[in-house]
Amino acid sequence: MIKIAIMGHGTVGSGVVEVLSTNHASITAKAAEEIQIKYILDLKEFPGLPYSDLFIKDFDLIVNDPEIDVVVEVMGGLNPAYDFVKRCLLAGKSVVTSNKELVAAKGGELLQIAREKNLNFLFEASVGGGIPVIRPIAQCMAANEITEVLGILNGTTNFILTKMIKEGMSFDEALALAKANGYAEADPSADIEGKDACRKICILASLAYGRHVFPAQVSTEGISRVSSVDVAYANAWGGVIKLIGRAKKIDPNSLECVVAPMLIRNENPLSTVDDVFNAVVVRGNATGDVMFYGKGAGKLPTASAVVADVIDCVKHMKARKYLFWEDGCPDYVIDQDQSSTALYVRCKTADCEKAEVLIRDTFGDVEFLFCREAAAHEITFVTPQGQEGELKKKIKSLSTMLEVINIMRICD
Amino acid sequence: MIKIAIMGHGTVGSGVVEVLSTNHASITAKAAEEIQIKYILDLKEFPGLPYSDLFIKDFDLIVNDPEIDVVVEVMGGLNPAYDFVKRCLLAGKSVVTSNKELVAAKGGELLQIAREKNLNFLFEASVGGGIPVIRPIAQCMAANEITEVLGILNGTTNFILTKMIKEGMSFDEALALAKANGYAEADPSADIEGKDACRKICILASLAYGRHVFPAQVSTEGISRVSSVDVAYANAWGGVIKLIGRAKKIDPNSLECVVAPMLIRNENPLSTVDDVFNAVVVRGNATGDVMFYGKGAGKLPTASAVVADVIDCVKHMKARKYLFWEDGCPDYVIDQDQSSTALYVRCKTADCEKAEVLIRDTFGDVEFLFCREAAAHEITFVTPQGQEGELKKKIKSLSTMLEVINIMRICD
Repeated sequence: MIKIAIMGHGTVGSGVVEVLSTNHASITAKAAEEIQIKYILDLKEFPGLPYSDLFIKDFDLIVNDPEIDVVVEVMGGLNPAYDFVKRCLLAGKSVVTSNKELVAAKGGELLQIAREKNLNFLFEASVGGGIPVIRPIAQCMAANEITEVLGILNGTTNFILTKMIKEGMSFDEALALAKANGYAEADPSADIEGKDACRKICILASLAYGRHVFPAQVSTEGISRVSSVDVAYANAWGGVIKLIGRAKKIDPNSLECVVAPMLIRNENPLSTVDDVFNAVVVRGNATGDVMFYGKGAGKLPTASAVVADVIDCVKHMKARKYLFWEDGCPDYVIDQDQSSTALYVRCKTADCEKAEVLIRDTFGDVEFLFCREAAAHEITFVTPQGQEGELKKKIKSLSTMLEVINIMRICD
Repeated sequence: MIKIAIMGHGTVGSGVVEVLSTNHASITAKAAEEIQIKYILDLKEFPGLPYSDLFIKDFDLIVNDPEIDVVVEVMGGLNPAYDFVKRCLLAGKSVVTSNKELVAAKGGELLQIAREKNLNFLFEASVGGGIPVIRPIAQCMAANEITEVLGILNGTTNFILTKMIKEGMSFDEALALAKANGYAEADPSADIEGKDACRKICILASLAYGRHVFPAQVSTEGISRVSSVDVAYANAWGGVIKLIGRAKKIDPNSLECVVAPMLIRNENPLSTVDDVFNAVVVRGNATGDVMFYGKGAGKLPTASAVVADVIDCVKHMKARKYLFWEDGCPDYVIDQDQSSTALYVRCKTADCEKAEVLIRDTFGDVEFLFCREAAAHEITFVTPQGQEGELKKKIKSLSTMLEVINIMRICD
């Protein structure tokens, strides 16, 4: 019998209770131990639940109880989650969390404490909800040098972009529908502005390359600047616009890491990942491209990933899983201007013919895009591959002729 | 320092040597031990290789050498692989294999020995090459009751079907191209007739439901009866034909398990898995659909999966991974006639109008399909969902009117 505590009884927390109860028999068989919830920590009241006697409001009961071996943190947010998790680890308890903000901000430090204390700190649910991603990267791909990790990491923005692409909605219409369907929160800024995807690519990059990447190091753009006209141009180019999180190894001491809407070709398997689905592509030097796909969020998918980690903790009470990365450092993530990319550039111009000549003179081999949805006096093109900073300088040099409406990266 | 032996120096075996050498530094870091190849067992000669001094021809040297902790079996085939693997386990050595024929035929027995001896018997590479599938099913989805596992499990047949669908090739043309590209062997029957996919769905079903499924228990059809006209009808219906392996839980004591070409809708993510790519979809009661996608075969992808298992063995020299299933039993897999499905039925008939009336009278709500590629006097329809045996009886009852050309299942 292993006793656990759950901190937080929101969507994920109540899902964890549900999964542990619904699949109790098979979970006991797989863990080879019965798993019993001793405490649920939440400041709110939940009268009338069949397990309402488990609720407590005092964290100290958990951290001071020697019977508790595993603590599940599903409160979300950085405070007090960080303090609580750290104290649990220092008190000799393994911790499972779904809290991407916590792992992205403090993962390196918490993994270090877990290693010193010979405990597990697991967070499969923090990226991709119920899609197994963390463990396959850490274990199954252990024999590969990972060259790149990229993916569609946020379901809300992917739902909005899908509605814009497939049903011709405007951004505002699609956002309103996402809210109506419960896919977007009342304040959707963390999703829309790319912050959620940024936390997830930080976790994936830290894991894949063994050194912590902090959200502040990652150039992050959201999707609010993407318009229906951009979607139409992308279609004319032979692709779609997706919010992509990407981490690319440059050399052992540096990394490119970015979150932004990018154009991807229709042949890329990520282009068909629609609605609230998420997908992560891992490029290994031996295995080639491997993709993990599924619903990236939701109560039960996320809760089942948390419970799978709890089972893993129970199976490894005396052995550590080899999930680890070093702490981060400045200058590890390169300035995005140093990265190599091609750019989609959409502009206004007084004289399209003149502008076309000038653009060709400046960039050489460019591809001009045309779509019916464009306004008059628009000129849109895709540059050749180049250093992002250099490309942007060239675009700036044309500013007497061109007024930039939007610039996006091409995801190769 | 952990010493290993590799049995078999074919495509995968030489790939294992290559991956261990190319990624040596990162593998040593991940395993926290240096991994050294002490022997390579192969009856053939490999003169001139930088590691030719490692080759031996006598298996007894491996099984009797107490320095060998982990043995890699990449010979393929059932004999002598089965005998060698069993003797290695009995001698206290963990075994890693990529041999799907061996795992599908003897996995239950070998896992039993591994458990008794407190060793690991790992086979991630046996399904999906470099795509992590076995371990995610066993671990990440431990908190789910898996309701269904299905997938495109054979790259050769998927390449052929893709060429038929996308480029209008005939089966024979596509097979010839697959051979020319090295995707099909000189004798392609194990692929074409579905045997390879059958072995893989046996392994997935055994793992997902905890009881061994033997290839002889699985109704297996290949793709040689699929014609360009069937492909055109599937397109008219709104889907494609794929060779699908599927295992579906009926109740705790019975399972549906089948390999056959099936029609799947264009909305199904499996429909866009093309060329030599493989994909496995796992349906869990908590997590919903999760898909794993990548190149299912090839020297380095498969070898990297083998090496990842070796690393896992090294990390768990004293702890067993919880990979296990019970031995099989008769009557565990239901007769395919008992399963529930809709059927695609393509027939010749002397009188299409009369036949249509008769088909409607017999089946009720059917969908008739039309395509330009059809010959005269063909009638093709999709039945409602029903018990497969009952549907086939009804089709037989129309045999005075209809001569069946092809029947395929609809994959829902």
